[in-house]
Amino acid sequence: PLIAVLPGDGIGPEVTTQARRVLEALDLGLQFEEAPVGGAGYLAAGRPLPPDTLALAKRANAVLFGAIGDPRFEALDRHLRPEAALLGIRRELGLFANIRPASLFPGLEDASPLKPEVVANLDIVIVRELTGDVYFGEKGRRTNVEGLRQGFDVMTYNEAEVERIAKVGFEMAKRRKKKLCSVDKANVLETSQLWRDVVNEMSTDYPEIELTHMYVDNAAMQLVRRPTAFDVIVTGNLFGDILSDQASMCAGSIGMLPSASLRAWSGDNGMYEPIHGSAPDIAGQGKANPCAAILSAALLLRHSLSDEASAQRIEKAVGAALAKGARTADLGGSLSTTEMGDAVLRELA
Amino acid sequence: PLIAVLPGDGIGPEVTTQARRVLEALDLGLQFEEAPVGGAGYLAAGRPLPPDTLALAKRANAVLFGAIGDPRFEALDRHLRPEAALLGIRRELGLFANIRPASLFPGLEDASPLKPEVVANLDIVIVRELTGDVYFGEKGRRTNVEGLRQGFDVMTYNEAEVERIAKVGFEMAKRRKKKLCSVDKANVLETSQLWRDVVNEMSTDYPEIELTHMYVDNAAMQLVRRPTAFDVIVTGNLFGDILSDQASMCAGSIGMLPSASLRAWSGDNGMYEPIHGSAPDIAGQGKANPCAAILSAALLLRHSLSDEASAQRIEKAVGAALAKGARTADLGGSLSTTEMGDAVLRELA
Ligand SMILES: CC(C)[C@H](C(=O)O)[C@@H](O)C(=O)O
Ligand SMILES: CC(C)[C@H](C(=O)O)[C@@H](O)C(=O)O
Repeated sequence: PLIAVLPGDGIGPEVTTQARRVLEALDLGLQFEEAPVGGAGYLAAGRPLPPDTLALAKRANAVLFGAIGDPRFEALDRHLRPEAALLGIRRELGLFANIRPASLFPGLEDASPLKPEVVANLDIVIVRELTGDVYFGEKGRRTNVEGLRQGFDVMTYNEAEVERIAKVGFEMAKRRKKKLCSVDKANVLETSQLWRDVVNEMSTDYPEIELTHMYVDNAAMQLVRRPTAFDVIVTGNLFGDILSDQASMCAGSIGMLPSASLRAWSGDNGMYEPIHGSAPDIAGQGKANPCAAILSAALLLRHSLSDEASAQRIEKAVGAALAKGARTADLGGSLSTTEMGDAVLRELA
Repeated sequence: PLIAVLPGDGIGPEVTTQARRVLEALDLGLQFEEAPVGGAGYLAAGRPLPPDTLALAKRANAVLFGAIGDPRFEALDRHLRPEAALLGIRRELGLFANIRPASLFPGLEDASPLKPEVVANLDIVIVRELTGDVYFGEKGRRTNVEGLRQGFDVMTYNEAEVERIAKVGFEMAKRRKKKLCSVDKANVLETSQLWRDVVNEMSTDYPEIELTHMYVDNAAMQLVRRPTAFDVIVTGNLFGDILSDQASMCAGSIGMLPSASLRAWSGDNGMYEPIHGSAPDIAGQGKANPCAAILSAALLLRHSLSDEASAQRIEKAVGAALAKGARTADLGGSLSTTEMGDAVLRELA
């Protein structure tokens, strides 16, 4: 199988290197091909998502993605900024389902700003819709009737889009604790009301799943108050973006959280990336936590290569390294990115 | 001065009663007039915001608001649901500036799910825009070209709307620690990019204020990771809704957080309400924490009646009652709503 490696910007290359080392160590006969993306793509080819990079991503069995974002390119036109690459791949590959598990590895209670009893045994999954919502609706600048500059972005979902992501949520819940919480803002938004209606309609197909609905403001609060009360959360692109970053704090550090972006439940052609960004402030210093990238490699094996055994080997190795006290700076330790990678590799061996 | 009292639904009446008792005890010569709103308005007059209620709110010097929301009316047309009343008053009174302070009263560290050292001395203010954004843009249902049901809501701001709320943020920061963090999602949204541009343009008028920008996903994370690093946050309607509910957990309980909704920096005709909702699950049981409502009455005196001394008397009385151990259930105690009101009144005397 061919793995497209797109390291991207900032700490992206550093953490991706460690994830690739781990995959190579498993000796699964994987082939790797690397290509520039984001700010790196712009520097190399004048576009954040060079055609060759996109072609590679489409050709590969799975994409291992680092991170994008570089303040040097913030003033460029939107289609030239690093973010355009990430949104472009998601759309071009049809990766509508973003799976963001948030679990607390034992021993990381100390690293979380939340009280240990609040986060102990945390094991939740956020299923975020990834190719619709206000991210991909019509958007632009115009001058209004009073001559004022105005910005606009259309938030929208249709029933088919809601159905396919809700199905991922229900199926995920079925394989877990059978609790699905759908998050929206139906008391204000028509898009959310349609979302809620469709999810309710589907629930008759899943009588064994306990379905609840929660407004996003309340969900943001409950994820701090009692995160362990959740099992699977399904929500739209924008709310999922916010809630999953927030939930990372329950897991000790955003440096721990992997994600899978899929276009089908089976995971064909998926993309795998840490949920953290490019962290330009610490880029190139060897300080970044590679665990999120390494755990993303585990998701790659699970979802795109159906290799559950190898996925679990990686996850256990990360857990074992942490249990022995391996910690990067974000977790209160002093290991470098490479040393943390080494620690995981030792446990794999 | 005339105070319009709109208790609303669920626990609204219970907590508002205590806030009114506190205002009455101060003997400031206030007149009170009550009217139904939300589900209560619908029951009394067939509309969530009866014309008499709106007229009273406009006539009054300030509005003391309880909470709205009642699951019995969720299936009604949007304009008949309780929420329509709240959105209607905000729009009709032009209350574009929602001030949501979040401070931790000493002794409440235990009530927060966050570690005591993370929330100690918390004192932040979220300035939320309240009459624009995806809340008030065009919205509806339609059938798309493929014959599918589709929901849509237009997110939009114009430069004048951004300017007036940013000014409130800058002015607030000027009176505090001189740090303003503007929260948006400019890497994806055009509305946010305009927001960021306008805030940047204004910053030249406030050279003494340290202005930063943060993406909303990161802000949601930082509000858990290191909430005390913030001073004033200014953001749009939707992001402010989410972040302020979330921030309430840093203050121990959402039952502690008041808010002021203003149409001018001076506070003329403001509306004052707890940020918590109607909590139908505990309504009528005398369990609700009235502190958020009582502290909203303090904001009413500060902003609408320019009576800083009385505002501080109330805030100190709440602090003193808590310091003596007065706690409702949400704070881990067993006082009823009325008993908590009594405890505050004792300290006022
Ligand atoms: C970089 C940005 C466009 C992206 C998003 O908002 O989706 C990121 O925050 C994420 O969550 O993957
Ligand atoms: C009830 C709802 C419409 C309202 C809002 O979203 O503004 C509430 O959550 C609030 O924050 O005051």
